[in-house]
Amino acid sequence: MQFKIREISMEPKDIAIISRINNEHIVPQARFRLFFGQKEIQVSQVLKVENWVKEDEIGLSHSLIKNLGANEGDEVVLQTQSRSTSTSYSLIKQRIHQPGKTFNNAEIDQIIGDITTGALSPLETSVFITSQIFQDWTISEIEYLTKAIAGSGQMLDWKDMIIFDKHSLGGVPGNKVSLLIVPIIAAAGLTIPKTSSRAITSPSGTADTMEALGCEIEFSIDEIVEIAKRTNGLIAWTGGLNIVPADEKIIRDVQFPLGIDPEPMMIASVLSKKVAMGVQFLVLDIPTGGGTKVENLEVGKRIAHRFAELGLRLGIRIESGITYGSSPVGHSIGPALEAREALAALINPQHASDSLIGKSTSLAGILLEMSGKAIQGRGQDLALEILNSGKAYGKFQEILEAQSGDPMIQPEDIEVGECVYEYLAPQSGWIVEINNKIISRAARAAGAPMDKRAGVHFLKKKDSVKRGEVIFQLYAPNEKKLLAAEAELVKNVPLVIEGMLLARE
Amino acid sequence: MQFKIREISMEPKDIAIISRINNEHIVPQARFRLFFGQKEIQVSQVLKVENWVKEDEIGLSHSLIKNLGANEGDEVVLQTQSRSTSTSYSLIKQRIHQPGKTFNNAEIDQIIGDITTGALSPLETSVFITSQIFQDWTISEIEYLTKAIAGSGQMLDWKDMIIFDKHSLGGVPGNKVSLLIVPIIAAAGLTIPKTSSRAITSPSGTADTMEALGCEIEFSIDEIVEIAKRTNGLIAWTGGLNIVPADEKIIRDVQFPLGIDPEPMMIASVLSKKVAMGVQFLVLDIPTGGGTKVENLEVGKRIAHRFAELGLRLGIRIESGITYGSSPVGHSIGPALEAREALAALINPQHASDSLIGKSTSLAGILLEMSGKAIQGRGQDLALEILNSGKAYGKFQEILEAQSGDPMIQPEDIEVGECVYEYLAPQSGWIVEINNKIISRAARAAGAPMDKRAGVHFLKKKDSVKRGEVIFQLYAPNEKKLLAAEAELVKNVPLVIEGMLLARE
Repeated sequence: MQFKIREISMEPKDIAIISRINNEHIVPQARFRLFFGQKEIQVSQVLKVENWVKEDEIGLSHSLIKNLGANEGDEVVLQTQSRSTSTSYSLIKQRIHQPGKTFNNAEIDQIIGDITTGALSPLETSVFITSQIFQDWTISEIEYLTKAIAGSGQMLDWKDMIIFDKHSLGGVPGNKVSLLIVPIIAAAGLTIPKTSSRAITSPSGTADTMEALGCEIEFSIDEIVEIAKRTNGLIAWTGGLNIVPADEKIIRDVQFPLGIDPEPMMIASVLSKKVAMGVQFLVLDIPTGGGTKVENLEVGKRIAHRFAELGLRLGIRIESGITYGSSPVGHSIGPALEAREALAALINPQHASDSLIGKSTSLAGILLEMSGKAIQGRGQDLALEILNSGKAYGKFQEILEAQSGDPMIQPEDIEVGECVYEYLAPQSGWIVEINNKIISRAARAAGAPMDKRAGVHFLKKKDSVKRGEVIFQLYAPNEKKLLAAEAELVKNVPLVIEGMLLARE
Repeated sequence: MQFKIREISMEPKDIAIISRINNEHIVPQARFRLFFGQKEIQVSQVLKVENWVKEDEIGLSHSLIKNLGANEGDEVVLQTQSRSTSTSYSLIKQRIHQPGKTFNNAEIDQIIGDITTGALSPLETSVFITSQIFQDWTISEIEYLTKAIAGSGQMLDWKDMIIFDKHSLGGVPGNKVSLLIVPIIAAAGLTIPKTSSRAITSPSGTADTMEALGCEIEFSIDEIVEIAKRTNGLIAWTGGLNIVPADEKIIRDVQFPLGIDPEPMMIASVLSKKVAMGVQFLVLDIPTGGGTKVENLEVGKRIAHRFAELGLRLGIRIESGITYGSSPVGHSIGPALEAREALAALINPQHASDSLIGKSTSLAGILLEMSGKAIQGRGQDLALEILNSGKAYGKFQEILEAQSGDPMIQPEDIEVGECVYEYLAPQSGWIVEINNKIISRAARAAGAPMDKRAGVHFLKKKDSVKRGEVIFQLYAPNEKKLLAAEAELVKNVPLVIEGMLLARE
């Protein structure tokens, strides 16, 4: 059917509004396409409403009209299909019904292309993602998938420069190590333009923590190249760049709402960003244990090998550090508290927590060895030397300045929540276990990561405590959030002291 | 957030409209719930639009307001969750990640309950459905699934009456056998209140064909019981009853748009309707071969055993007839043409096609043997006797009348499309293959099943033909539809004559 465009300010932006009296038939889960000249666009939903647009009008958002290259008043054609007729969905269906079948390069390109344009709906994409839990993917398939996702958006060309990077598979709260690793590597003269995500399910992502330091994190590709040339290092938000849009769409529309992350997609998601960013040397942090994506050392090793093998095919040298992921890194969780801790560790490494310094310098050490800056077995020593000499802090000040932050900022300048709850040891003994999931949930209930001031600060970790001593403090921006966070700690057991009753029934 | 209800006439009916200036944050694929008093309802999408509702208003459809038990102006609370926190979705995730895990009765009840209320979204339900392609389901699980789906809506109580039924797994065009089987069985004194679907992907469902005869097909449960007591038989539309809403939702929102139908759901979908309808004796038609759901005889036998075993657990005696499904049944495809052929076969069985009479009487014969009306091996003879004696036609006239049709209607009274295209034999020889999919596609392109007059009529089937003889006629309501249908026949090869070139490259 043909309609005249009318601009309507709305959200979500990919919906079309037509008149109730129009005889267009709307089937649940149908696919809708708009045609204007040579342009064709997917619409996620067509809504028929009374007394809003005229019978011959279609209401579209500004960005949809722009994507069509049209103007208000132009004529567009709306096509409704009760279900998909896309070749790429046929390919997905074929593979799920044929155990032996694998995808070739062109097939994966087509699937990823159709996800990017919206020709494959979230529902159809969910079949693609869910099937990866059950069907093994060959190394070639994951390679094609990585390249196709990388190719779905912009890619960086660094010319002769050699690019280093660090990535963590995640799942450990308090993991602010990038804020130490980036300045250590940059101070060693290597280029490390780190891109990070904001927190999705955790209390703080590296991008959130940088923001808590008062930094800009949204840059264009040109700005990233320019800053990296000047400082050797920076920490930017991935989402601000137009890289890997296919990956963003899959995570936003399918993986996040469903909470599933099958291995082929997990690997391709990480490596596609590295391919797009032009990375040549990568150290991969693989946290294992409770709450992480990797249940044990064996699985961690298998994943490390898979990454290394794929790296070879993609022209990226990858070495992995399999790390302990069952308790928080350092003493703080949440953007402001983590920013404070990382900054303090850079200024005064001797007083920082062993887990933070140990993890940061061992991962940085691997990169230093890969680069040839340190000989085998001496990377961590060099990293510690750079950190303890104050060179890493000096470099971090340059980075702060380059990202519009205050290079003289001190830990206590970073504002934390005014409302504090103190968790007291219910009995004396050793803290033998900290439940990452419960601690993270409490920090999120307190407002993290949206409210940067919220979080958890440990005074004692795997320590001996006396009954009544403060083990950790919970920070929240207001009483309501604090109560919500406290409720999580009452409902669940955040940590275990040897000999403590876990439940009484 | 709290809002004042404003009624808006719109479609789909499960969407909420709020103001653009409202600070409610809308995440893609988020879950939205409305609370009013003790009532809680899922909303599939929240749309923020400028200049439509006021900042404190929420626009809802009449049916949503009714389901909430609210009125315009009442205050409702809108809750947004970035993703599901439902227990049933956790259960689904657990099972896909644990190969050994199976569902118990209570777990399946919870999942089906949440699908029915919408607490599980189509996206989440797709994980449940897709995983069934990969993970084996135990017979107990399919039993629970069947019972849970049956229990999601109304169930019939026939008291002392014994209920017979016939069901086909489908996939064969022209399968109008129910229009013969129901009157044969009813004429034998058995009760067969057949419920049928409209066509989903085929050119005609039994319900569509009954409608082409000028019958009512939408009845309440009470009306079905009342008619069945009077005539012993009827053919009603399943969708008009409030039975198995969970099944309808799964098919409409997930299985149909995705085009997948894994075995556990396929079996549960059929049997849940039989449980809800109070069926005790069922003959199941399992068409095998090209275009059907069952690739070969072996698979057909396995499915037949699975149905029989489940039937035992559910109190339904099931026998299956595995039938030839690679070419159309009878000579006609499409609601009006099939109605003509079935009616003609009841009036004058001697002139009807062998495939129609043979399939109808053999399946009816199985039911007659199961009931004890015929001894083993003599069921089909009895069915033929009832048909040839005119008793089946007499019974069908009673059914026509009970369903508000004209008992004196003649085949030629049923209107067919005015525009006709004749497909001529491109060469002489035997017709060795008819491509069901292409014939169905042409009939649908001609307008079937929505336009009852559209369809295909074969003058020759697996016959010897001379070059230039008419093999089949294509009927369409107008020239445009006829051209669309012809295009399907040009693009593809609808039938094969021995020795014919299939393609030339």
